[in-house]
Amino acid sequence: MSSVGTPDPNSGWLSDEELAETRRRLPLLYVEAVPVRVDGVGQVTEVGILLRANSAGAITRTLVSGRVMYGERLRTALFRHLEKDLGPMAFPLLPASPVPFSVAEYFPFPGSQFTDYRQHAVSLAYVVPVTGTCDPRQDALELTWMTPSEAASDTVSAEMEGGRGSLVRAALASLGALY
Amino acid sequence: MSSVGTPDPNSGWLSDEELAETRRRLPLLYVEAVPVRVDGVGQVTEVGILLRANSAGAITRTLVSGRVMYGERLRTALFRHLEKDLGPMAFPLLPASPVPFSVAEYFPFPGSQFTDYRQHAVSLAYVVPVTGTCDPRQDALELTWMTPSEAASDTVSAEMEGGRGSLVRAALASLGALY
Amino acid sequence: MSSVGTPDPNSGWLSDEELAETRRRLPLLYVEAVPVRVDGVGQVTEVGILLRANSAGAITRTLVSGRVMYGERLRTALFRHLEKDLGPMAFPLLPASPVPFSVAEYFPFPGSQFTDYRQHAVSLAYVVPVTGTCDPRQDALELTWMTPSEAASDTVSAEMEGGRGSLVRAALASLGALY
Amino acid sequence: MSSVGTPDPNSGWLSDEELAETRRRLPLLYVEAVPVRVDGVGQVTEVGILLRANSAGAITRTLVSGRVMYGERLRTALFRHLEKDLGPMAFPLLPASPVPFSVAEYFPFPGSQFTDYRQHAVSLAYVVPVTGTCDPRQDALELTWMTPSEAASDTVSAEMEGGRGSLVRAALASLGALY
Repeated sequence: MSSVGTPDPNSGWLSDEELAETRRRLPLLYVEAVPVRVDGVGQVTEVGILLRANSAGAITRTLVSGRVMYGERLRTALFRHLEKDLGPMAFPLLPASPVPFSVAEYFPFPGSQFTDYRQHAVSLAYVVPVTGTCDPRQDALELTWMTPSEAASDTVSAEMEGGRGSLVRAALASLGALY
Repeated sequence: MSSVGTPDPNSGWLSDEELAETRRRLPLLYVEAVPVRVDGVGQVTEVGILLRANSAGAITRTLVSGRVMYGERLRTALFRHLEKDLGPMAFPLLPASPVPFSVAEYFPFPGSQFTDYRQHAVSLAYVVPVTGTCDPRQDALELTWMTPSEAASDTVSAEMEGGRGSLVRAALASLGALY
Repeated sequence: MSSVGTPDPNSGWLSDEELAETRRRLPLLYVEAVPVRVDGVGQVTEVGILLRANSAGAITRTLVSGRVMYGERLRTALFRHLEKDLGPMAFPLLPASPVPFSVAEYFPFPGSQFTDYRQHAVSLAYVVPVTGTCDPRQDALELTWMTPSEAASDTVSAEMEGGRGSLVRAALASLGALY
Repeated sequence: MSSVGTPDPNSGWLSDEELAETRRRLPLLYVEAVPVRVDGVGQVTEVGILLRANSAGAITRTLVSGRVMYGERLRTALFRHLEKDLGPMAFPLLPASPVPFSVAEYFPFPGSQFTDYRQHAVSLAYVVPVTGTCDPRQDALELTWMTPSEAASDTVSAEMEGGRGSLVRAALASLGALY
């Protein structure tokens, strides 16, 4: 438990020190979502990318993501992180299938496709249509809606944290919308 | 064109004789949908199965399905057949991805997994959550909502036309809901 | 040709005129393969792209592809076209699953993602590791092995017939190898 | 064991006590494989199921599975567990795609689809064709090759550990081989 006696709600029943320790020992399980808008026949029209100030104060782009906690189902974790990052009125349509469109492996060392300096994380990535109004909370500054081709552009890709540009492209490819 | 000068809206710009002829020469492309109800986190709660009298007058169970016409996109065909079979108030949520959960190959001879005495058809099969009210039209008598385990049961499987019982099971398996 | 009493083995039991007629009436079903080389743990190392002179005499790049014939199983069609385009010693490892990584819709008019001036074709696309020696036959000049990043480059993409550059990218994305 | 200064190679750089502690705090990441034999066009002909004496001495059936260690890639973990369970001459053909056919969530309490009394584990499950000779090692008594319909039968399903019978059925469904 943390020093103030209440568990950090984001630490999955681990104190901060325990989490730091575990991060050096085990791959952590994450879920990740690419929010999209779709038209009446399910065709993607826009992709939602979060704008966020990272811990070093730099502005960076990222996806909805977060850890799966002990005892938590994947779809519950996905819903929780969507609500945390997009607000309670986003009305996401969670996938009926638990099979992700991609599995991203983040390593804390350079040279890997996806990097996370804090840890080895394995992330199950889903495309999630949202039907309501997004109101980013916590540390996100804004959710930017882009066309598929903007979201897949080299410029946006280069701004995305940890190599997630290629995850956005893989999401679009899985939708038949990468050109 | 048909003899009365108006194309049959269900024949994809082929007259009945032309369609009959083509059916002996080429595999026809179909789309097929397993309608489902899902809860707030996307978990399937019910599966919709059509009850229908076939051309021989026998009562049989089946899925939403139909041909893709010349010039028609797959998602447009899927939407058209959902509306035709479930009515205009079903409000189906079409998949954002064009990748089916399964591809069913129907052959007009015994011994194949899926059979269709009329033709060789290849069907791209999708799970489609519906959010509205279903009101089967045309030749369907009723849409029956079942739990996943009822839909996967041997009894229901045996009643399904052309071997589609195994397609329902594959749909449930793709949702992590086949036991 | 039909006039000499023997069906063209590539026309699927249709004469040339019948095939031409059908192409204006129905979507045709194709299978398509992206040949790859993989290492000992299944990671893609190279992608095989065909170099071919098209009917106008221009040099163009393409994938292994071809029609599914009446009565033919998808995996038999896939095997037949792999052998036709890569030769009998390619030793392709056909996918155990019939679910394609993508479904490409080719239309004979501009503005669609994939184009084929001859017809409306729907193509089920698979990644196929090959373990032997490729010796392109028929009208293919050469099979070029490229790294994943070369195959996904704008240059190669622009040289590919009918928009297949985005299909190569989708193949790589499905393998976690699109950057 | 940690007390003698050398980490257990199977504990992922955690001592036994640390692993036991972590198992009460975090979901652990697993990979799981359904070994299959395929014919020349990729069609599954047989499914390999392990026969094993569990810690209580009972004979039970299971799949190839094991933890992903810190810093280890998923495909390396999959290869390591295949070699551990099937021996060095199995020659498995690892999937080119990192996307599993299913994600199984094991919880240490009754009522969940998959159960593991030791822990909350999330398992990425793959179908893996094997081309060589399997020689189960460690605690496995035998690898039994079955036809797809035997492997999917109620009898075999009931004998499988932790609910993995439904995972075998989902594997077969993903191959178009569940009836």
